Amino acid sequence: MAKTEFDLIDTFFTQQQVQRADVNLNIGDDCALTSVLSGKFLATTTDTMVENSHFYPNIDPRDLGYKAIATNLSDLAAMGAEPAWVSLALTLPKSDENWLHAFSQGMFELLNEHHVALIGGDTTSGTVPSITITAQGFVEKNTALRRDQAKVGDWIYVSGTLGDGLAGFYLISDLYQGKKSAVNFDEEWLIQRNFRPTPRISLGITLAKYQLSHCALDLSDGLVGDLGHILQRSGVSAVLNLQDLPCSAALVNLYGRQQAEQFALQGGEDYELCFTVPNHKKALLDQYLAPLKVPYTCIGRIVEKNPQQNIIYQRQGKMVDLQISSFEHFK
Amino acid sequence: MAKTEFDLIDTFFTQQQVQRADVNLNIGDDCALTSVLSGKFLATTTDTMVENSHFYPNIDPRDLGYKAIATNLSDLAAMGAEPAWVSLALTLPKSDENWLHAFSQGMFELLNEHHVALIGGDTTSGTVPSITITAQGFVEKNTALRRDQAKVGDWIYVSGTLGDGLAGFYLISDLYQGKKSAVNFDEEWLIQRNFRPTPRISLGITLAKYQLSHCALDLSDGLVGDLGHILQRSGVSAVLNLQDLPCSAALVNLYGRQQAEQFALQGGEDYELCFTVPNHKKALLDQYLAPLKVPYTCIGRIVEKNPQQNIIYQRQGKMVDLQISSFEHFK
Repeated sequence: MAKTEFDLIDTFFTQQQVQRADVNLNIGDDCALTSVLSGKFLATTTDTMVENSHFYPNIDPRDLGYKAIATNLSDLAAMGAEPAWVSLALTLPKSDENWLHAFSQGMFELLNEHHVALIGGDTTSGTVPSITITAQGFVEKNTALRRDQAKVGDWIYVSGTLGDGLAGFYLISDLYQGKKSAVNFDEEWLIQRNFRPTPRISLGITLAKYQLSHCALDLSDGLVGDLGHILQRSGVSAVLNLQDLPCSAALVNLYGRQQAEQFALQGGEDYELCFTVPNHKKALLDQYLAPLKVPYTCIGRIVEKNPQQNIIYQRQGKMVDLQISSFEHFK
Repeated sequence: MAKTEFDLIDTFFTQQQVQRADVNLNIGDDCALTSVLSGKFLATTTDTMVENSHFYPNIDPRDLGYKAIATNLSDLAAMGAEPAWVSLALTLPKSDENWLHAFSQGMFELLNEHHVALIGGDTTSGTVPSITITAQGFVEKNTALRRDQAKVGDWIYVSGTLGDGLAGFYLISDLYQGKKSAVNFDEEWLIQRNFRPTPRISLGITLAKYQLSHCALDLSDGLVGDLGHILQRSGVSAVLNLQDLPCSAALVNLYGRQQAEQFALQGGEDYELCFTVPNHKKALLDQYLAPLKVPYTCIGRIVEKNPQQNIIYQRQGKMVDLQISSFEHFK
């Protein structure tokens, strides 16, 4: 006999939980009950992943669980928030215990690492698998990293390396569509970067806590598109130094530096942070970020609004003409 | 050209908003930022509706928007929480402006009535339309209405009338499948009860605030199934008085009292509250509920756990043998 919704919830989604003092009532009632310290803002984000729009049917459910959590925690990191709780809405054609077991393991791998509780959700039946996560965390009032806070003169930074997520997506697509049957070491590394992005939690918290930055977002749609949101909301423009774009050895090995830069600019699903730092905080930034062991790179600077060109590209100080469109899923 | 995600969000989901002092940063950044008063618990619930699992493709999008909000606010009411914010994850095959306009109007009709803000969400493309709402509200610590708090001797109450949601669902199905082509006044009323359930917000808040009850849930899966959750979690049993089950005139007109009682017991999607009240609070209950103008009925009593029979059915004080299974969607 098929397990009921209540059995499933109990089996896979309550047994691997961390305990948090701020969770008063967990899964199983009409609502979860949690408490929030005064003086803190609650940061809330929601992301949906739909089969064939955001992932292929053959994805390892463990990777899917991991990625669903990672993309949401990345949004919290982009506000400088410390993650606390998530809710899960899961739609599946049938209740498959092996699938649920692997999916929940992938979720809890990342949830438990960051001491985040799953406080509720809904499991529904539907022909197309779909996952919606709502994640919440805390940030001290007036320290949150907002898209509208970039100032002229701020330096533009990114964490990690860019373009891996998009290159990984192309490889995953080629494998799924049978255009490719095996991958080498570098290709496998890029695929893993897509399946298992690293939410930059400690970086986001440190930037906010020490007020090293007031402006950040996470790179889900690609640097050009996402930086464009910062520029538009802050009423400024940017100069990007192409030679400084951080690209992974795997990406450069496979595609060469020039193509790697294109991936870095256009690429989606990197889930790295892009943030701006006032000039007088630059030295402090290096001091506070050193212990985190999170790679970060200065790639440009915020300039006054240029109505003709939102982003000015330079290489070694010389202007370069580039047309880049941002990444759209499965188009 | 199709509108982008950002245009859509702006057009339909930010312009009809109520303003709330506790919303510091709304739609448009990586996260929303909100604040919570100390001394309050935050209540969180998530519900998903998937086409062909929870609604038919021909549903009026305005009704769909209304119902998606209603079912979530109902969960908050069942905790005694005052609703504050919702997030919306919306999956659609294509971006249809007329559809989005009507859907958002239905949502905001109910959100604005209860002064609830839409603080964020995600719009994604997928072949099967699906809506996931996460709703949050506040309840004073230690007054929340929980499923595990029914005590022997408590009276069992329900709000409104029961069975209308299920009868409405059957009528909607018959119309959709062409088994029926027109409806009379009573049938239309039942259909509206299904499409537009009334979340019992003021009732839930009053029960919690004056501690008239410590135990409630909302009837989404039917009285027998849902009351079963209270009994199981509280370690008690119940006696139900069949003659006291509140059935609407429309339901009784169409199906007769006996069939109406079956609908009332088994019926899902009523979104009425079921709550228990200690004997010494009975008079106080009537006093506090009178101004709300919300109908409510005492239908039975909590008794000591009966391992043989979780719910004992009586009619005019005499035991009745009944087998009732709870409602499952679209089965």
